Amino acid sequence: MTERDQRRSTCPISAALEVVGDRWTLLIVRDMIFGGARTYRDLLAAPEGIATNILANRLARMQALGILTSLPDPQDGRRMIYRLTPKGLDLLPVLMGLSTWGARYEGGIAPEGVLEAWMEDPKAFVTRVQAAQAAD
Amino acid sequence: MTERDQRRSTCPISAALEVVGDRWTLLIVRDMIFGGARTYRDLLAAPEGIATNILANRLARMQALGILTSLPDPQDGRRMIYRLTPKGLDLLPVLMGLSTWGARYEGGIAPEGVLEAWMEDPKAFVTRVQAAQAAD
Repeated sequence: MTERDQRRSTCPISAALEVVGDRWTLLIVRDMIFGGARTYRDLLAAPEGIATNILANRLARMQALGILTSLPDPQDGRRMIYRLTPKGLDLLPVLMGLSTWGARYEGGIAPEGVLEAWMEDPKAFVTRVQAAQAAD
Repeated sequence: MTERDQRRSTCPISAALEVVGDRWTLLIVRDMIFGGARTYRDLLAAPEGIATNILANRLARMQALGILTSLPDPQDGRRMIYRLTPKGLDLLPVLMGLSTWGARYEGGIAPEGVLEAWMEDPKAFVTRVQAAQAAD
């Protein structure tokens, strides 16, 4: 059975949380979208201090789930380059919802202008950020 | 030290995930917003099968964090009635982001019309759902 077959409800919120309902998965997506992280070493540098075994586990799981892809670095074949798939990039609205809430209620501080741009026009924001990722 | 003092980054996404980065917290918010759940018994009935000790732990933590309040039921003083605070209700955009993604990529099925209404006009959707909660 796959993870999906084992689900206990058809709720799409529950389905999403079974995939991204641990904080590390979404922090990895954050660092790939907003921090330009592309390698294991880049991701290990996150200020939250992810453990090496958790990072390796999450990267393998996210690849199996189609959230990211990995390819050997053309300049150094021992190193993998990770990229988000469209499925991974489509987590951006979830990140922005969390960011808005974390800034409003939990004292988080977003880079200047980001939340304003998101709240002003969410669709345009997503299009712009996703296009920048695709061009990267 | 409070949970907030112990944080390792100022990122608002990380701050939010330290509070709601476990799936049960968001499923409890879901059941209070969309399922009309108001009591421990209501919440225990979620199709995902939350364990009694996890539910009790999460309710106490969510109350300490200002996401919900509890008051004795006027009709039965042994029973508590839980209600989301404005901080809890403001998790709605996060739930809708997860719902959209879970329906699109993970086979989840939202109640008819809900995702369409959200995507058509997110701000109006939030205003309408939050007003219904306040009137409840």
